[in-house]
Amino acid sequence: MPFNEYLPPLYFRFKMSKKPLILITNDDSISAKGIANLVEAMKSLGDILVVAPDSPQSGTGHAITIHSPLRLAKSNQFAGIDAYTCSGTPVDCVKLSIYEILKRKPDLLVSGVNHGSNAATNVLYSGTMSAAVEGAIEGIPSIGFSLLDHDADADFEASKHFATKIAAGVLANKLQKGTCLNVNIPKGKLSEINGMKICRQGTAFWEDSFDKRQDPFGGTYYWLTGKFETTDKGADTDMWALENKYVSIVPTQFDMTAHHLISQLNEWNF
Amino acid sequence: MPFNEYLPPLYFRFKMSKKPLILITNDDSISAKGIANLVEAMKSLGDILVVAPDSPQSGTGHAITIHSPLRLAKSNQFAGIDAYTCSGTPVDCVKLSIYEILKRKPDLLVSGVNHGSNAATNVLYSGTMSAAVEGAIEGIPSIGFSLLDHDADADFEASKHFATKIAAGVLANKLQKGTCLNVNIPKGKLSEINGMKICRQGTAFWEDSFDKRQDPFGGTYYWLTGKFETTDKGADTDMWALENKYVSIVPTQFDMTAHHLISQLNEWNF
Repeated sequence: MPFNEYLPPLYFRFKMSKKPLILITNDDSISAKGIANLVEAMKSLGDILVVAPDSPQSGTGHAITIHSPLRLAKSNQFAGIDAYTCSGTPVDCVKLSIYEILKRKPDLLVSGVNHGSNAATNVLYSGTMSAAVEGAIEGIPSIGFSLLDHDADADFEASKHFATKIAAGVLANKLQKGTCLNVNIPKGKLSEINGMKICRQGTAFWEDSFDKRQDPFGGTYYWLTGKFETTDKGADTDMWALENKYVSIVPTQFDMTAHHLISQLNEWNF
Repeated sequence: MPFNEYLPPLYFRFKMSKKPLILITNDDSISAKGIANLVEAMKSLGDILVVAPDSPQSGTGHAITIHSPLRLAKSNQFAGIDAYTCSGTPVDCVKLSIYEILKRKPDLLVSGVNHGSNAATNVLYSGTMSAAVEGAIEGIPSIGFSLLDHDADADFEASKHFATKIAAGVLANKLQKGTCLNVNIPKGKLSEINGMKICRQGTAFWEDSFDKRQDPFGGTYYWLTGKFETTDKGADTDMWALENKYVSIVPTQFDMTAHHLISQLNEWNF
């Protein structure tokens, strides 16, 4: 059945419901264990629509697809849940959900649970968090969740627990316009986690190195690798919280202005 | 000649020079008129290395390439200038420049001149500006330049003038760690521009719409289009400056923490 025949019933069904409408996306693709667990966690909180990439999109940041067309396809990935795959990035998924599938804004956007940390400056590279930032730009209360475990078969039990708690908190309290939450969850069992901490984004950078190889034809190619380095030792950062087995919650904004520099730059003699 | 044979002489030559080393990249690709004009503008200020995408990378934001390998190739695009193309994104170009080609940090990173505005929230989607933000993460004084003209054959005379002036200002004054500059230049002749203004990032969003089409096989595909909408009428924004024919300069930081919300979130009963 062509894709567009699915749209009207879905649109009207969500419109008639009294429950909050929760849009779920991620960057590890619709097949990842992390998004399956996030769907499970959100079931008790509202109606769910999943629109997620059809292939892994880790590290795509806030990319949008403008040089090639986008595709959407109905997915049966989650029993009893309306779900679609998208050929583009996480930010494309958010835009297609709002402007093409729903023709309205959801009440909550959750992204993840990412396989791997998006703490500190990783927020900038993260497709998972960029989907949440895009939600914030659209005025939707939005949260990105990430577990500090890259394993495809990671244990998401603690993530589910905290995702439910934090999403319920956002639905109850709302978030200030222009902001979203960057939530990272330490690896380990729920009983090993000391609680939640509101933090600032730690300052760190990737000390990159390139794994240089030869292809069978003598050409050189590179794999990006690296070590995450920091000199930021503050006990108020997400990195500190995670090292000390707390869930880190960083209120995150899309205003990137360094406001404190405006007056200084006005003194410059260009 | 394999690529790696070029590396040692370049590395030592830059090391021996007393001039500032300026790294130039963009997102419109090495063939764009904008980067050719930026190379011209920077010639008087220092030694130049160009590392730019081999294909257009507009809208790739802070994406990095981790699911496929990267390629570098020597380019003769600019007479007498060391230049390379990279198969990846603008942020990949910055990382390869620092960690593979130069094995050091340049004294200045300039990105652009972009064909089209990167004012307001466009900073998040922009590959041009993400290269500058990556420079800031690496501690390099960095500037992204964009002209409000998408035309492939746009007039970059005014851009060249202001790029030279602002880059010289950054070399002389340095920028505070953790920040870079987002510079947008109005369309038009130099004589039509009223000057430069230090601004904050305007709040705006894309009211997206999708151009829905059928392929020859009956499948549906979408092109992302949209209108840039704002309710932010402040006279201190980059949008205001550009509408009033000023060059806008927004000090931009990679700390996305909404610091003002930390105490508020601590009051929440999760």
